[in-house]
Amino acid sequence: MIIQLEPTISAGQKADLFQQLKAIEVKPAEVSTQFGHYIVGVGKKEFDIRLIGSLPGIRDIHRVSDDYKLVSRKWKVEDTTIDLGGGIRIGTGHFALMAGPCSIESEDQIAKTIEHLKQSGIRIMRGGVYKPRSSPYSFRGLGIDGLKLWYELASKAGIRIITEVMMVEQIEDMLEYVDVFQVGARNAQNFNLLDALGKVDKPVLLKRGISGTMEELLQAAEYIFSNGNERIMLCERGIRTYESAYRNTMDVNAIAMLKAKTHLPVIADPSHGIGIRRFVDKIALASLMAGADGVIMEVHHTPEKAFSDGQQTLSFPEAERLYQQLEMAYQLRSSFES
Amino acid sequence: MIIQLEPTISAGQKADLFQQLKAIEVKPAEVSTQFGHYIVGVGKKEFDIRLIGSLPGIRDIHRVSDDYKLVSRKWKVEDTTIDLGGGIRIGTGHFALMAGPCSIESEDQIAKTIEHLKQSGIRIMRGGVYKPRSSPYSFRGLGIDGLKLWYELASKAGIRIITEVMMVEQIEDMLEYVDVFQVGARNAQNFNLLDALGKVDKPVLLKRGISGTMEELLQAAEYIFSNGNERIMLCERGIRTYESAYRNTMDVNAIAMLKAKTHLPVIADPSHGIGIRRFVDKIALASLMAGADGVIMEVHHTPEKAFSDGQQTLSFPEAERLYQQLEMAYQLRSSFES
Amino acid sequence: MIIQLEPTISAGQKADLFQQLKAIEVKPAEVSTQFGHYIVGVGKKEFDIRLIGSLPGIRDIHRVSDDYKLVSRKWKVEDTTIDLGGGIRIGTGHFALMAGPCSIESEDQIAKTIEHLKQSGIRIMRGGVYKPRSSPYSFRGLGIDGLKLWYELASKAGIRIITEVMMVEQIEDMLEYVDVFQVGARNAQNFNLLDALGKVDKPVLLKRGISGTMEELLQAAEYIFSNGNERIMLCERGIRTYESAYRNTMDVNAIAMLKAKTHLPVIADPSHGIGIRRFVDKIALASLMAGADGVIMEVHHTPEKAFSDGQQTLSFPEAERLYQQLEMAYQLRSSFES
Amino acid sequence: MIIQLEPTISAGQKADLFQQLKAIEVKPAEVSTQFGHYIVGVGKKEFDIRLIGSLPGIRDIHRVSDDYKLVSRKWKVEDTTIDLGGGIRIGTGHFALMAGPCSIESEDQIAKTIEHLKQSGIRIMRGGVYKPRSSPYSFRGLGIDGLKLWYELASKAGIRIITEVMMVEQIEDMLEYVDVFQVGARNAQNFNLLDALGKVDKPVLLKRGISGTMEELLQAAEYIFSNGNERIMLCERGIRTYESAYRNTMDVNAIAMLKAKTHLPVIADPSHGIGIRRFVDKIALASLMAGADGVIMEVHHTPEKAFSDGQQTLSFPEAERLYQQLEMAYQLRSSFES
Repeated sequence: MIIQLEPTISAGQKADLFQQLKAIEVKPAEVSTQFGHYIVGVGKKEFDIRLIGSLPGIRDIHRVSDDYKLVSRKWKVEDTTIDLGGGIRIGTGHFALMAGPCSIESEDQIAKTIEHLKQSGIRIMRGGVYKPRSSPYSFRGLGIDGLKLWYELASKAGIRIITEVMMVEQIEDMLEYVDVFQVGARNAQNFNLLDALGKVDKPVLLKRGISGTMEELLQAAEYIFSNGNERIMLCERGIRTYESAYRNTMDVNAIAMLKAKTHLPVIADPSHGIGIRRFVDKIALASLMAGADGVIMEVHHTPEKAFSDGQQTLSFPEAERLYQQLEMAYQLRSSFES
Repeated sequence: MIIQLEPTISAGQKADLFQQLKAIEVKPAEVSTQFGHYIVGVGKKEFDIRLIGSLPGIRDIHRVSDDYKLVSRKWKVEDTTIDLGGGIRIGTGHFALMAGPCSIESEDQIAKTIEHLKQSGIRIMRGGVYKPRSSPYSFRGLGIDGLKLWYELASKAGIRIITEVMMVEQIEDMLEYVDVFQVGARNAQNFNLLDALGKVDKPVLLKRGISGTMEELLQAAEYIFSNGNERIMLCERGIRTYESAYRNTMDVNAIAMLKAKTHLPVIADPSHGIGIRRFVDKIALASLMAGADGVIMEVHHTPEKAFSDGQQTLSFPEAERLYQQLEMAYQLRSSFES
Repeated sequence: MIIQLEPTISAGQKADLFQQLKAIEVKPAEVSTQFGHYIVGVGKKEFDIRLIGSLPGIRDIHRVSDDYKLVSRKWKVEDTTIDLGGGIRIGTGHFALMAGPCSIESEDQIAKTIEHLKQSGIRIMRGGVYKPRSSPYSFRGLGIDGLKLWYELASKAGIRIITEVMMVEQIEDMLEYVDVFQVGARNAQNFNLLDALGKVDKPVLLKRGISGTMEELLQAAEYIFSNGNERIMLCERGIRTYESAYRNTMDVNAIAMLKAKTHLPVIADPSHGIGIRRFVDKIALASLMAGADGVIMEVHHTPEKAFSDGQQTLSFPEAERLYQQLEMAYQLRSSFES
Repeated sequence: MIIQLEPTISAGQKADLFQQLKAIEVKPAEVSTQFGHYIVGVGKKEFDIRLIGSLPGIRDIHRVSDDYKLVSRKWKVEDTTIDLGGGIRIGTGHFALMAGPCSIESEDQIAKTIEHLKQSGIRIMRGGVYKPRSSPYSFRGLGIDGLKLWYELASKAGIRIITEVMMVEQIEDMLEYVDVFQVGARNAQNFNLLDALGKVDKPVLLKRGISGTMEELLQAAEYIFSNGNERIMLCERGIRTYESAYRNTMDVNAIAMLKAKTHLPVIADPSHGIGIRRFVDKIALASLMAGADGVIMEVHHTPEKAFSDGQQTLSFPEAERLYQQLEMAYQLRSSFES
């Protein structure tokens, strides 16, 4: 059950509400976000929700039978749109392209990527400064200094930054230089990180775990929302299966189903979804047709020299061709929905 | 190594060839199909293939490093097209739609489906008369009598029949009444069935196993081809993963990769690929964008009353909407390839 | 619902019974096996089973809520024991060892294996004469002639034969020369083969599919039982997972759970379960402790020269050491159960 | 390549060494642990390791071709033993039992558990005070206060504490009250947490990820070791597969293989490995026979009232029976190894 409160609710009215909830054995959790003030109630008893809904100070009330509540479409039917400012929006009606290298490597690389994005009309740049690497002996990113340099160049160019945060302690330092925080697949159930990102007023792109279920992904998003941050995107990036012919198995079923289960935008990552450069375009297009609200992909001015993930990274000409195809496919898809 | 022989090769020339192969420790397998006569050679020694290629009676020779040979694109670069007669073709340039019920149930059902297909311009009808069922107590299909009835109605309407064969003994009885034999996911490595279908001059649609790899699927096709039947389609129908939110996980990566690895047409089965009616359209479109040469889907005049698979079966109006979307998406995809 | 009939039930009593079942909307399936005559009833309505149970000609009646019925322990609480004659029994209280090569290769190999088994007191020999192989160009077994030769040597030595049957047509030819038919993982849902083996009075060892579920395995066994053959063993041989460090992942959970769900004996195949020779002993012992009623394993006089599966095949000295360890572990396990 | 340095190596000798490594294009990483000082070198060029090994100040040098280095048995052949003081050791020759509730709930529960452990001679108690929960609305543990209370009671009783740490910030507060830090499956690739635990002089039990590979688990351990902490145990706790009949699939193959690949102790968690109380004993015994150096399991004085994981938690009498069985099985296994 989700109860949305009026901003004007009085202390007495709230006390009354809590008493009523206690009477019907509902355990309430208070949630205050950028956009509203809610009570999430968990209980098992049958009761008439109109009794609660008609109390003063209450805007509306919905039953939500899912284990996740605030991210469920059962409560909020219309799609969430995330506004990054400057006319950059993510969500239904605004197909979002995000591109950039796996790792931020140098000023030259940043500059070349920004130039490429500007020419293609792409306004969100991805890149990693903290890199989760299987081996402790691998390159682990340029860190906060790399981020500052990148932010300086990107913000001048009107480009937004999306980058991975790996631990709670990094958030404060990164906050000023990041437009969208990304939570990687390995941290998809790092609940403390999710809690902390719920307390920050920056959008979060949450990747599905390496073998995460729909349920786990939505519950992870619930962590962020219930801590106060409504600006969440989910990202399908391929799952681990028995098939070793590709790095991961892109799960277009998940994209289609997530769009039905949640009001949050769903982004596809075809680079990780298949992990092989020559197929990234087809997987990006497939993901779009399955319903993705955007695509995040790895591009590099010289993929074969990239510090990481070169085998799945597109060159600029390859990427430009794909941007155009995605734009056309998005137009077609939109025509189906009207 | 694949050696294609001239039809005019003499016995003496062939004997010479075999002697040469023996000298370089290549184990030869002779393959005669509807369209050619080949020697498939397996060996480990290094040698100059021109020595073999320049022998009399030999049309061409190719190295094929894959474990599958005749179905590999390394040998045959151009796409295979399968001609079902009457202008019905499957393969590049001919997007194939196949639709029909999970199970053939009655004359009325067949007639209604044929009517629907004709109105939509669909010329291949799917349906099961031998049904693989998990439980021995479930409905197992109408059998050969159902097939004969179906064939009578379909052939009058110019509609081709694709239906599953489950065992070698069924082939002979079915042969006259079937246009395309389907091998189901549970028989994807029923090697005796594959052998037998290699000896029949009817096209075969081979489904990927429930947890089949790319390699296994292509090797299974090799069984059919090496027994003499080149007219093979592969079918991606979703794989088994840890995710239980859908019946199977549609693997669009497989579609994209199969198109690169083999010259055979690749068909997508979105009905089984996700197993939930409301998402079949999105998964069909995603599969097409990943490169599928056709889509096979379950439709029924009253899905909720279907004998089997009703939960993933489209109604006729739903299907008609999807046929049109697929047609438009196919046009768009074709424009990308030119 | 399973109704066991008295052998003396009259036609009139049976007709009465069917009428009663019809009245409560239960769909009956008649099953006659080597050991009994049953009605398996599937229905959804609530009713008092005593009304049926007290009819004349009925020995007993049980509700079975599982989708599989006759193989369920809910109906038959005591363990099934399979008697191969000559004092050779499989089932609780009789830990069964079965060993032999992957493929039957030659008279010499058979003789050496029999000698090894006799010295070790093992009385069931495994081996393949029809081999399911991923590639059509691989060795596919010696076939029926190999089987006859093997049977001649084995029966003289008092050794029973377990070997794989791949298709219905092979059964008749093989019948005389086989003590236990094995159904391989790739045919775990070859329902026609299961049907046919249900009509044969020889025990069947049924392997779990490559990614078969508990439910599917038990339903597959139900096919055999409901066609008339009660003498079934189940075999856990490892499943396909994302982990590629071993050939399969031995699933000891399945062994423990199957022993609770069914009255049939459960055999473990550690050779395929891990696929790496040096670990076969540990996996065999683990499987035993999880509750296996027996172990089937690959042994060869010169594993490195075996025609197939050499990498997972034990040498005779390795096997002898393991037989002894298994015997000791079985004694220990038995002491826990008393 | 791993170079172990003499404690007495001089600055000049070290400088020489680094110059030599540079010459052969080896990238060196310095590692100082509780027990030694190492250089881990990663390079691709061929060279004679004796040239390095014979330099002054170097104790020994080994090639290690695995991607993980310091945790590999290729470098350190003898098993690592972890000493918890008071005669409590984990590693070969010291079968370790760890038991306790999923969550620490109350003083009464702690006291009862300690009493049970003491009577059974178990000296390591597990329990969670920070609980990773799928839903943000679930009980998340008693936190640091619960830990302090627990530590007070346990240390009086001579019982060691193993408990999960979820984030870097918790380490400092917990340090004084913890004997072994546990890293949970969801944090198996939380590299910052692993880095931080590498800097702490307390043993770490590292769980395999929900779908972690052998390679990933060993690389995760390498993170801890290369940051300075050699006292690491690995824990197999079941993996995620397609089978939904149990919570996870216990992977005994992993236990057998890890014992061959690494010198670190390997612990089995049968409670999570199958997730169903009645089978925990069989899975524990199976894991032991596969080679586990210890078992960690969930026990509770009233499992049905446990705050979490009750369905997989043993009662005290059930646990006592299992402790004895494990002890006997361990004796048997030891007899095989001698």
